[in-house]
Amino acid sequence: MKINIPESSKKRIVIVGGGFGGLKLALKLASRKEYQVVLLDKNNYHQFQPLFYQVAMAGLEPSSIVFPLRKAFQKNKDVYIRVTEVLAVHTDKNQLETSLGICNYDYLVLAIGAETNFFGNEKIARLAIPMKSVSEALFLRNRILSDFEKALSTTDYEERQKLMDIVVVGGGPTGVEVSGALAEMKRYVFPKDYPELNTDEIDIYLLQGADQLLLGMSEESSRKSLEFLTQLGVKVRLNTLVTDFDGEYVHMNNGETIHTSKVIWAAGITGNKLRGVPEGALTRGNRIRVNRFNQVEGLENVFAVGDIAYMEEENYPQGHPQVAQVAMQQATQLANNFRNLHRGQGLLPFSYRDLGSMATIGRNRAVADLPGFKFQGAFAWLIWLLVHLFQILGVKNKVFIFLNWVWNYVTYDQSLRLIIRPRVPKSGEVEVEP
Amino acid sequence: MKINIPESSKKRIVIVGGGFGGLKLALKLASRKEYQVVLLDKNNYHQFQPLFYQVAMAGLEPSSIVFPLRKAFQKNKDVYIRVTEVLAVHTDKNQLETSLGICNYDYLVLAIGAETNFFGNEKIARLAIPMKSVSEALFLRNRILSDFEKALSTTDYEERQKLMDIVVVGGGPTGVEVSGALAEMKRYVFPKDYPELNTDEIDIYLLQGADQLLLGMSEESSRKSLEFLTQLGVKVRLNTLVTDFDGEYVHMNNGETIHTSKVIWAAGITGNKLRGVPEGALTRGNRIRVNRFNQVEGLENVFAVGDIAYMEEENYPQGHPQVAQVAMQQATQLANNFRNLHRGQGLLPFSYRDLGSMATIGRNRAVADLPGFKFQGAFAWLIWLLVHLFQILGVKNKVFIFLNWVWNYVTYDQSLRLIIRPRVPKSGEVEVEP
Repeated sequence: MKINIPESSKKRIVIVGGGFGGLKLALKLASRKEYQVVLLDKNNYHQFQPLFYQVAMAGLEPSSIVFPLRKAFQKNKDVYIRVTEVLAVHTDKNQLETSLGICNYDYLVLAIGAETNFFGNEKIARLAIPMKSVSEALFLRNRILSDFEKALSTTDYEERQKLMDIVVVGGGPTGVEVSGALAEMKRYVFPKDYPELNTDEIDIYLLQGADQLLLGMSEESSRKSLEFLTQLGVKVRLNTLVTDFDGEYVHMNNGETIHTSKVIWAAGITGNKLRGVPEGALTRGNRIRVNRFNQVEGLENVFAVGDIAYMEEENYPQGHPQVAQVAMQQATQLANNFRNLHRGQGLLPFSYRDLGSMATIGRNRAVADLPGFKFQGAFAWLIWLLVHLFQILGVKNKVFIFLNWVWNYVTYDQSLRLIIRPRVPKSGEVEVEP
Repeated sequence: MKINIPESSKKRIVIVGGGFGGLKLALKLASRKEYQVVLLDKNNYHQFQPLFYQVAMAGLEPSSIVFPLRKAFQKNKDVYIRVTEVLAVHTDKNQLETSLGICNYDYLVLAIGAETNFFGNEKIARLAIPMKSVSEALFLRNRILSDFEKALSTTDYEERQKLMDIVVVGGGPTGVEVSGALAEMKRYVFPKDYPELNTDEIDIYLLQGADQLLLGMSEESSRKSLEFLTQLGVKVRLNTLVTDFDGEYVHMNNGETIHTSKVIWAAGITGNKLRGVPEGALTRGNRIRVNRFNQVEGLENVFAVGDIAYMEEENYPQGHPQVAQVAMQQATQLANNFRNLHRGQGLLPFSYRDLGSMATIGRNRAVADLPGFKFQGAFAWLIWLLVHLFQILGVKNKVFIFLNWVWNYVTYDQSLRLIIRPRVPKSGEVEVEP
């Protein structure tokens, strides 16, 4: 079966993945109309990863941080969006195998991103809670609230503590932001919602394998983030690796254990796999090796951008950091290179321009490393808010996130404490998958 | 096992269900502090039913129309909320059987509401989509969007029409409001999102068993709602009963069929069942017969309010309509009667005061029957908006719904067209139920 997309006299670029890289590229190409653009994603929306943790913490609605792909292309007739699973690539035939059928391409761009890395531990993969999609963030929100409800019905002290304590694994931006937000909830939200529980006894642990937090950031930011988290009451353990988790106890490399039902796993990522990508092109972290034009090694018409792409540059001999900025800059450059191709001109090499990085730690506190300018505290927090508000797609999302933030800030209250589950499919019913 | 709620010197009132009746009663009782109040619900939130259809139509977020129960009682120490399934009542022992254990009561109030009535047709129950909870509304939203995505990949004309056409069954307020909203989406939203499809060919049917729409309302409102829907292009079929639906074809009593994958079922409700309620107290529509004090027949300390309660009054010899107003008025009266009980005074009988009813039909149009004052059109629509905004719980919900409405109205765009599914539980994982 062939996917139902009309043939065109233009060459067809197929983009797999509507994340930061894929969406940016599709938007640039769409505006120039030189190619037929096909965008494939398993969801019908683009997700704004930096704010997943606020969904998990009941501060923002999922809908505020995702954006319908079709809405982004309403004015572009020659862009075809298909919600589908991409199963394999056959580079010899210039074909993709998808759940909707075979999709031919003239040029292919893999923007398939990365998934949570459980480092091969299947038990952890099964029992810990990742946070790499808005669905997972929502699952975490439901799980935290459900566990508090369970704690209410538990007369056993140990059992109750197990349900209330939370372990966050990984001291990167996600781990730092989640544990900071949890500390704020412990302080302002849980005592009001659960007067029957002794919420002072909630322990929030942050476990980090390295000897400092926020490894990619400056020494100052690492130090300050540790200080902020400690002030908030988060128990940060550096040089600590999780060796096992059985749903009851977290085992660490120092021989100690923590009794908890909940482990939030933000310890690392690994590139998403796609059958048919040449074995030889895969490198560490399961990334796909590309040249400076984002071309996959040995394949002239296949490209990769963003987290999945591994490109060495003078200043980045070990590849670029896996962040949104790299993905978006590569997408912009690749869009320009497609224009050059269309005009019969040569390709230009990519260079990454680091615009800095930030992380927020609870209310009023953040750390920021901008080029030649590092700062921490309330001002950094304000800048963090503005930068993220500016980056999120859609005027409506911007307005509603801003209002939510003001509301939450003023009331000290994340109000979305709802365990909303989808309807349970009725017996015999097959839910229609897109 | 006993449910974990502290014993108190006060008498305990257990309320089952946090809908309009149960919540109102709990709030009134909480403020007076004469009793220990226990509120049981299977969800941790109260749902605002009148706006479910706007969630299904991607106009409002689920979180905007539900309200966390705990938040409503943050200031009341003697109210115990438990998220649990109530399995049975043992009136001889003054006990409830719940999924969290046995719960004793001195007084019991059943506010368990009603569920969708499929009139015993199991095939329809399995294949049609009801809309009696926010979860079901969300399911419907996902389903409509998924079917449009599928339609894009379908080359067969008949098959594609089947995915795009929608049949709404039941000409009460829900059916009228849903079909009106669908007609607006057909006109303003789908053509922009799906330029590849011929959205003019979407057929929206509304099937009504009686010879007019909105049976409980005035002749004028019935007539006008039919006129408005017809103007919007909805194919209204009166005197039409659905005899069968097999997932492909809707069969009607006139022998005709409609080819569609989607049937929205709003054809009626039936009282929720609870094991242990005396058989003799059950009457038609599976409602529980109560006297004018809302006491269940033959049981002095068991009460029922709202949709589940069947009470005959002079003006309502067949029982009250199953609407929010009745539930809330009964709750208020019952709260007063509990105060009387506490003071050793007699109970006062309930009388329903009809404040009128309304239904909205798409943009700018509604019908309203207020006491001694009937009107239809744009003014009725404005009043509808204000009344619903005023009724919804929580200042934040009011503000955000208002802003959403303004946004949707100005942009002609319901922007929440997202197929967000929860994370698929991983193999071997047991999702923790509250």
